Amino acid sequence: MVESKSQLQALAETARVAARALAKASPAAKSETLRLAAQKLSDKWKTLEAANQTDLAAAEAAGLSQAKLDRLKLTPKIQSDLLQGLLQVADMPDPIGEIEDLQIRPNGLQVGRMRIPLGSIGFIYESRPNATIEASALTLKAGNSILLRGGKEAWNSNRALVDLLQESLLEAGLPKEAIQLVPTTERSAILELCHLSGLLDLIIPRGGKELIQLVQGEARMPVLAHAEGINHLYVDAGADLESAVAIAVNGKAQRPSTCNSLEKVLVHAAEAKKFLPRLEAAMSAAKVELRGDERTRNFISIKTATEEDWSSEYLDLILTVKVVDSLDQALEHIARYGSNHTEAICTNDYGHSMRFLREVDASLVLVNASPRFNDGFQLGLGAEIGISTSKFHAYGAMGLRELTTTKWIALGKGQVRD
Amino acid sequence: MVESKSQLQALAETARVAARALAKASPAAKSETLRLAAQKLSDKWKTLEAANQTDLAAAEAAGLSQAKLDRLKLTPKIQSDLLQGLLQVADMPDPIGEIEDLQIRPNGLQVGRMRIPLGSIGFIYESRPNATIEASALTLKAGNSILLRGGKEAWNSNRALVDLLQESLLEAGLPKEAIQLVPTTERSAILELCHLSGLLDLIIPRGGKELIQLVQGEARMPVLAHAEGINHLYVDAGADLESAVAIAVNGKAQRPSTCNSLEKVLVHAAEAKKFLPRLEAAMSAAKVELRGDERTRNFISIKTATEEDWSSEYLDLILTVKVVDSLDQALEHIARYGSNHTEAICTNDYGHSMRFLREVDASLVLVNASPRFNDGFQLGLGAEIGISTSKFHAYGAMGLRELTTTKWIALGKGQVRD
Repeated sequence: MVESKSQLQALAETARVAARALAKASPAAKSETLRLAAQKLSDKWKTLEAANQTDLAAAEAAGLSQAKLDRLKLTPKIQSDLLQGLLQVADMPDPIGEIEDLQIRPNGLQVGRMRIPLGSIGFIYESRPNATIEASALTLKAGNSILLRGGKEAWNSNRALVDLLQESLLEAGLPKEAIQLVPTTERSAILELCHLSGLLDLIIPRGGKELIQLVQGEARMPVLAHAEGINHLYVDAGADLESAVAIAVNGKAQRPSTCNSLEKVLVHAAEAKKFLPRLEAAMSAAKVELRGDERTRNFISIKTATEEDWSSEYLDLILTVKVVDSLDQALEHIARYGSNHTEAICTNDYGHSMRFLREVDASLVLVNASPRFNDGFQLGLGAEIGISTSKFHAYGAMGLRELTTTKWIALGKGQVRD
Repeated sequence: MVESKSQLQALAETARVAARALAKASPAAKSETLRLAAQKLSDKWKTLEAANQTDLAAAEAAGLSQAKLDRLKLTPKIQSDLLQGLLQVADMPDPIGEIEDLQIRPNGLQVGRMRIPLGSIGFIYESRPNATIEASALTLKAGNSILLRGGKEAWNSNRALVDLLQESLLEAGLPKEAIQLVPTTERSAILELCHLSGLLDLIIPRGGKELIQLVQGEARMPVLAHAEGINHLYVDAGADLESAVAIAVNGKAQRPSTCNSLEKVLVHAAEAKKFLPRLEAAMSAAKVELRGDERTRNFISIKTATEEDWSSEYLDLILTVKVVDSLDQALEHIARYGSNHTEAICTNDYGHSMRFLREVDASLVLVNASPRFNDGFQLGLGAEIGISTSKFHAYGAMGLRELTTTKWIALGKGQVRD
């Protein structure tokens, strides 16, 4: 770990050169790299575990919470998930070079769009070392080079994983600079990465709110970032209440720490009397604390919600509930307090389902389903590198295609312009 | 024209409110607005001409060049082009609400992507008042609101055109704030627009290099900008030389002031002796000055090209020529000096055409056709708002689709996550 101003720049330059090689790499060489990496992940598991042990021991000594230690640990379950993930991405159709919308113009010129990589990507993430493999596999398949900046706690694990990925690249005949680890865990490296415009084509930050805001504020190149998920479920008049309760419980309690968890429930006044006691019973069984506006307290006795509650992402077993008089009121509330992440309606009204789908501005809008489905695997992407809450380039779950772009191509036989 | 710090902010806030209304506006209301605008453009032509005369008189008094006066003038030809453009955009299929890639997941959940507007767009442009109509029509059709900041010289013309567009909006039942003109021509308004992140979702600058660099440096939101076009034609060994000369002349001389004009020709050594004298004759007839590297001067006597020539966009009747030994050398030169705009090859070699298409990083890559085809109309977009040389979100000619994005939708019947 050395002071790294010019070192980081030099690294990014090699990543840029590698990106040009990757853009024309054969699908076979990219898939072969991923299969080799899977093989090595098996063969070298003992070495990886040893590196991970070093990180775990240091983290424990530094007094990290049990939750953080759990996130850091490479378990046999994680090994098997990573293996499966690598082979799955290896087997996915290669997106690069695909030609879309090819049409023949009146002058005989054939024009279309060819899918191409974005270039070189900076990936800034926090402690889970699995992300090192997952992000590298996806960016490589999409023909991009990646510069990884992982968490300090995972330094040895990440180093060992990147060594394995680089060996795989070389054996498959690709430049090892396609996947590189930033050789310092100094916080200043994040700022430096953000300022390497012209060398990095994109930055993807994955982690807490603070990290993401830092990167968004500093970056001089495009950022694919996901903001918090202040996600609502609106229970319409006439909705299936049993299903609504099940969706609310699944949304809130299945894995409360994730950004696609449910944070608020809006219920139509016509259903409040029947729905709220059922919701309270189910949430109580799931150990969820309810808070509500004044009108909810006519039906159940729960804590009063404050203004702050409506704009909070708890990521915890807390849920805020409100009674509304109409779909319009629900839409208004969501437009005001939602964070463009995940919004759901329970309804049996065709017109209301159509209006909700059309009018709600969120990266995923659901009808009669749990917000927990906002996840690349659940949506059928095969793999995911994050969920974008910005509309530019990609909105919502991002897979292979979102790590690419298209250029125009024109196939002529001597055409000139009149 | 008043001091405008908070005024501009207030304006952008109304644009943002209008964007929400437009996102759910019916296709019929948007098309109706454009048809009404076409009608008014006919009915009120005398008023528009009078406003334009005021601008022209002031510009003449201020000593503007004839070229600039020409760009400023609203002629009957421009009127007819604008009319046709408005009706054409009105008749295009409405992209908003289209659902793509709808698939059924194993749990029965139907997931897909719905096309939605980007939101509110800042459009900063220079003197041509036609752009006021063209940009407004396209952004409206795509369901976005627009805040226009035109050139100082066109103030009265733009004001009259925006009045007409706002009347059309109101008559079609849409908010007039969907299309607004920044009420000041102070240069500081550009910087202010660039800092209205959270209120404007996108900025599109259209104009000279200086304007675009200013906006790219200052904007705190995404920018769709086009850089200069340092465009090459590579004439391969075995290419049809007659066609190559025709493409070069069309590329260079048909309209030299445009960003899709040809600036450089690279010729394979095997063809230099036959090709260069023919090129010289044709270019001389077209009044084009040739400059070349040392090797070209073995065949024709032209001025020596300097290092600066290779990285210059002339936008003028000047062309630089170089002899190369291979396709690889041509690709290397283009990667080094090209500006990712428009690159062409003349070849009869199948493998070379495929490699050129695949390996050249430019917004349009052509085989055996003139670079002048890099234009939304020529590529079949129906309308164009610019040519992006950034790969993010849109690369190359941008039409209706590039002014939109997609959100995910999920249609369930009570699904929850395991």
